[in-house]
Parts: sequence; C-alpha cells; structure tokens
Amino acid sequence: MEKTLWSHISTVRDQSPLVHSVTNYVVMNNTANALLAVGASPIMAHAHPEIHEIVSICQSVVINIGTLDEYWLESMLNAATNANRLNKPWVLDPVGAGATSYRDTALMLLLALKPTVIRGNASEILALAKSNQTKTKGVDSTAESNEAIEAARYLNKNFGSVVCISGQTDIIVADGKEIHISNGHSLMTKVTGLGCSATAVIGAFVAVIENKTEAVAAATALFSLAGEIAAEKADGPGSLQMHLLDTLYNITEQTFLTRTRIK
Amino acid sequence: MEKTLWSHISTVRDQSPLVHSVTNYVVMNNTANALLAVGASPIMAHAHPEIHEIVSICQSVVINIGTLDEYWLESMLNAATNANRLNKPWVLDPVGAGATSYRDTALMLLLALKPTVIRGNASEILALAKSNQTKTKGVDSTAESNEAIEAARYLNKNFGSVVCISGQTDIIVADGKEIHISNGHSLMTKVTGLGCSATAVIGAFVAVIENKTEAVAAATALFSLAGEIAAEKADGPGSLQMHLLDTLYNITEQTFLTRTRIK
Amino acid sequence: MEKTLWSHISTVRDQSPLVHSVTNYVVMNNTANALLAVGASPIMAHAHPEIHEIVSICQSVVINIGTLDEYWLESMLNAATNANRLNKPWVLDPVGAGATSYRDTALMLLLALKPTVIRGNASEILALAKSNQTKTKGVDSTAESNEAIEAARYLNKNFGSVVCISGQTDIIVADGKEIHISNGHSLMTKVTGLGCSATAVIGAFVAVIENKTEAVAAATALFSLAGEIAAEKADGPGSLQMHLLDTLYNITEQTFLTRTRIK
Repeated sequence: MEKTLWSHISTVRDQSPLVHSVTNYVVMNNTANALLAVGASPIMAHAHPEIHEIVSICQSVVINIGTLDEYWLESMLNAATNANRLNKPWVLDPVGAGATSYRDTALMLLLALKPTVIRGNASEILALAKSNQTKTKGVDSTAESNEAIEAARYLNKNFGSVVCISGQTDIIVADGKEIHISNGHSLMTKVTGLGCSATAVIGAFVAVIENKTEAVAAATALFSLAGEIAAEKADGPGSLQMHLLDTLYNITEQTFLTRTRIK
Repeated sequence: MEKTLWSHISTVRDQSPLVHSVTNYVVMNNTANALLAVGASPIMAHAHPEIHEIVSICQSVVINIGTLDEYWLESMLNAATNANRLNKPWVLDPVGAGATSYRDTALMLLLALKPTVIRGNASEILALAKSNQTKTKGVDSTAESNEAIEAARYLNKNFGSVVCISGQTDIIVADGKEIHISNGHSLMTKVTGLGCSATAVIGAFVAVIENKTEAVAAATALFSLAGEIAAEKADGPGSLQMHLLDTLYNITEQTFLTRTRIK
Repeated sequence: MEKTLWSHISTVRDQSPLVHSVTNYVVMNNTANALLAVGASPIMAHAHPEIHEIVSICQSVVINIGTLDEYWLESMLNAATNANRLNKPWVLDPVGAGATSYRDTALMLLLALKPTVIRGNASEILALAKSNQTKTKGVDSTAESNEAIEAARYLNKNFGSVVCISGQTDIIVADGKEIHISNGHSLMTKVTGLGCSATAVIGAFVAVIENKTEAVAAATALFSLAGEIAAEKADGPGSLQMHLLDTLYNITEQTFLTRTRIK
C-alpha cells in the first residue's frame, strides 16, 4: 500500500495539476503554499463572470465554506456544478458544519452536487450527516469516533463521496473500505488552516490519480506525516507552519515508506 | 500585579475561549494563529445570514475595520449589536481612524454600540476621540502621547470602554486608572498586523476574565513581551512573526514574571 | 548602474512611501510584509466610499487582479482613475491574463488607464498584449521570451508603461531601453505571491523615484537578489518566505553591489 501511495505522490509532483480553490480568506495563503509544496499549481478565483472558465482550465476543484457569504456560496455552487458538468473531481471541506443553520443549508445544496471527496473533522462529518438525515434515521452510536465513521458511511452511501475524517487518526471511508492513518501531531491543531490545507492537497491528488480512495489516502498520509516531522523540528506553532511547507516539498520515498502508519 | 496577570494567562490557556473575529483580510491568518498560540479558538465569519448565530456560540467578538466595505460594515454592526444583546464583551480595533470620512462614519456607528475595549495606536485613538467630539470640546494638549491619553480618557468616560493605546509604551486607560507596559520592540512595527493580533488576543482575555482592565493588561503584557523576546531571536521581520507565535505558545510563568515591565 | 539603483533603495528606506494596494486575498499578508521590509508603509483598502480618499493620501497605487470580482474591479478602476487625476504613479499586475475573458475585459479597461508600470510573467505579458491587439497585428515571433519582449514593447509604445517581464531573467522594457536582471532562484516559484510582492515593491519605488525605469530596475534587482539569497539559506519554500522578508530588510550596499547581475 505505502509503495502505491508513494507512486501517487510522485505522479502529483510530475504532473503538477492545476487546482482551483474556492476557499476561505483565512487560509488562502498557506493553502496555496501547501499546493505548491506538493508540486501542484493553485488558482484561487470566485468571480461569477469567470468561474466556469476557471473550472474548465483546472483539473480539480476544492470548495471550503470557512468564510462563506451569499456571493461566495453562489460561486461555490457554480464551481461544483461546472466541475460535475465537465466530469472533474471536486472536494468539499465543510468547515463549521453544524455551527449555524446557514452553513447547514449551504452544505445541503453542496452535498446534493455529490462531492468526489469530503474531508472534515469528526464533528463536522457528524453534523453534515445529521443535517441531511430525517430525524428517524439519526446517527446514534455512542462513541464519537464510531459515530463519525457511521456518518461517513452514510455520506459515502448516499452521495458517493470518499470521506476523510481527520483527527488523531485519520480515517478514510469509501465503498466497503476503511483506511486508518496514524501520523500527525497534536501541535498541528495550534496552526490555523492545516485541515484546509490537507483538503487542498487532496484536491491535487484526485486531479491526477484515477483511484480516488488511494488518492485521498496518499494525500492524507503525506500531509499528516509531513506535519508530524515538522512538529518534531518545531519550537511551536509558528515554526511548525514553516517546517511543514519545507517537509511537504522535500519528503523522500525512504522517509515516507519508513514512517507512514497505515492500516 | 504580574502574578494576577499570569493567572489570567493560565485561565485563557485552560478555558480556550471561542473568539469571533470580523476582521481585515490582510491579518486573518496571523491573527487566527495568534489566538491559537495563546490557547484560544478563533472563528472568522461575516455572512449576514449567520452572524447572529456565530456571535451566540462565541464568548467574545473582535471587530477590526482594516479592510471594511459596505457589506462588512453591516456585518460588524450586526455582530456588535448581537454581542451587546447577549451581554458578551467585544473589542474594537479602529484601523486607519481619521484616514477617510467613511472610516470615521463607520467608527461613530460602532462607538455608539459601546465597545468593551478599544485598542489602537496613538493617532487612531486621537482620531477616534476627535471625530466624536464637538469642535468646542477638542482634545488640545500638545504632546501626542499626552493627547492620546486625554483622548482615551474621553472615550472611556463617554463610551465606558477600557482603552489601550499601543506604542513604545502601551498605555491602558480605564476608570480612574492608568497602566503602563514597557515591553515590545521596534522591529514589531515592520511586521504587518501585529497590532491587529494584539487586539484579537485582548478578545480572548476579555472572553474569560471578569475584570476587563486586568484582562486587557494581561493580554497586552503577554503580547508585547512575546514580541520583545521574538525580536531578540529574530534576524528580521520574517523570523520575528514565526518566533512570536512560538513564544506566545511557550512563554512560562517565570519568564513572564521576570521580564514584564508594568507600572 | 548598480550604484544608482542602490541609492534608490536607500531613498525608499528613508522616505517610507505610503503605498495603496488593491490586490488579491491570497497575497495580502506577505505583500504587506514585503512593503514593510523594504521600508515602505502599506495600506490595503477597496471600499467604494473611501477609495478616492485613500488614493489621495498615498504616494502610489498597486493594482493586482488575482482574485478580482465585480465589486473589486470597480474599486480598481476607481483607484487607477484617481491616481491618474492626482498624477500619482500606479502599477498593474495582470495576474492570470488570458485565463478568462472576464480577466481580459478587466485588463483592457485597466490598460486604457495607462499604468505607469506593468509587471507580469512572460505568458501574462503576452496575453495582455494579444488581447489588446487586432488579430492582424498578432505577436508572432517564435521563442516565448522574444515574443514576450515584443509584447512588452507593444505595451510600452501604446500605453506608455514601463514593462517588467519576470522570469529566470527579469527583463525591463522602456522607451528604447532594455534591462536584464539575472538574479533570483527557481525555488521562488514554489512560494505563492512572490510575483505579487515584487509588484508591490515596484509600487514603493515608483512612489519616490523620479526615473520610473530605474525605479523598476532597483525594485526588481532588490527583490530578485533577496529571493536568491533567501533560497540559499532556505530548506524549502516555507523557510524561503521567512528568509526573503529578513533579507529584504537587512540587505546591505556591499551585498547588493557585489551580487546584482544587471546588463
């Protein structure tokens, strides 16, 4: 498995896919830098008069609702619709799902467009599934991580999306499969937008890797391991961000094969 | 005093308040990182359909007019109004006060909503007071720092806000009190958005500390000292930003008690 | 030549021009930091009710269409028009020229306002010239760099702009002149927004240097050399961004005179 994932990392570096992000203001800079560091090319654009053309020249689309508003939601729906029309993969990051009814409405509209991949933390994945279920079908297992896996299965089954639940262990849920990746470091939660950057990197991988589950696994393993290595070198969250970009750029096959913890 | 302030720093780390920022595009990333580094949780959201719900789940609100426009001004007024309605503290950063009549109009509307705290540099605090005084009540002392203190007293008296004038010495003005903090470093002025980050950190402290004057003093002392230590380690403004986040995250009681200069 | 350019770098440090940027969300933070590092003062503002006042207090304007939309395009046209009315220099960064017809329309409107300087990579300069030529006047030399120089000459001749084509070698095209600067480093392309930062730094130089061609050359040589030195110190793109800001701030006359490669 690790060897396959590394070959996908090489493919992204070689093919340098163009990734269109409609994302939040807070993370645009470090997200674009994460894409560049893994070998992809970022484009960020949201204007209604051009969004269909931007989608048409890119190889994948990333939609992140972190700082959405009425104009941007229309941009997002437009981008996802065009990605579908052109048969291009798109990734949804449901930031703050469950926090407001506006977010939940926005997410229902986006979910209906069947994202290729959804990545969020356990509570976001749970909220996303709950807001899309009738009350009688509630997700009702007790442990939160189990609950989130149930929610991910629900989303996978109903919308066809590969779902990545990020956390201490990242869990990828796809048709009949579950992949657990135990890299990463707790200090990563003290840097803003690393989840959003992970989502963007997934966008780069689904752009050029046919097997979408493997694409998500490769992106997630790369990002979490790079964060783990960066945290070991860092003196705090400021230096972690810097080392993360350096590590994403420099990581070697040997390090990846030796240190990735997947099952 | 220093021991009390340190206990407030510990409280923020322990309670990890949720801070809602309606702030400017330039500083969103480093502001969110500063909040994370002191132990708080940042949320940035501005959409009219959800802003009241975001305010309702947060413990404080930070409003920064740096890149305001018509839509965002409405978001800001909405957020401040809801914070007041829910009896939650909110902090105003009057970036560029006095630069344009649009800013001054916006600030008059915001001031009327009685911010819990106002933080700005001397010229912003002066401009804020001047634009809200009738001409016959002009602030007219001669030295700028003295002028700014007069202006701060005016704002405190008329709007009930604790006022923090940032500069080589940070001066906090509240009912009958004045606190001077002489930490910081001139290199901090060469990094964009450190004033905005200081304001956000104040937002984290007023969220969980009852005594608002002490909250502002603790946040200001922490931020200025962290900047001073970071500047000593830095080779320039790029590394200062990195070391600042690391230092905010790592600073110990002993360092704080030894190096803080308050009177 | 190098001595003249260094004197311009000193002038910017001494006079600390106020530079108004109407730029894209992705690069606002690192662009503001680049301006501060070379000694300038950045302002970012786009609100229609205040943009004319902001232009009136600044010494130059920088317009970058990276994440333009309907509101921001109006801000940009407004800023450029006011800069012209007040006889202040302004710089255009045609990010993504040629990518969408919306961008090309926006750029045609901006070009008609005769930017003092245009800075872009070869394909942007080419697209900018092509979209403004009738079909029979197509730029049709074969080698891309030569093509871009032809395009730059066309833009200079028709709009009076000094044109800077950035790339492995940066080429500045002005009336009857061509300056080649061979500093820089390939790792710079792995950091988002360094082209945009270079444009902003050009904005600082044209604000206070009378000879606009020399101003562009000084800014470009400084930025490319600082990037080159930063890349030598960096372990990857994350640390390059940090070292770049430190180097822009610290670079000395001796280093500049010794290492700049201009012809």
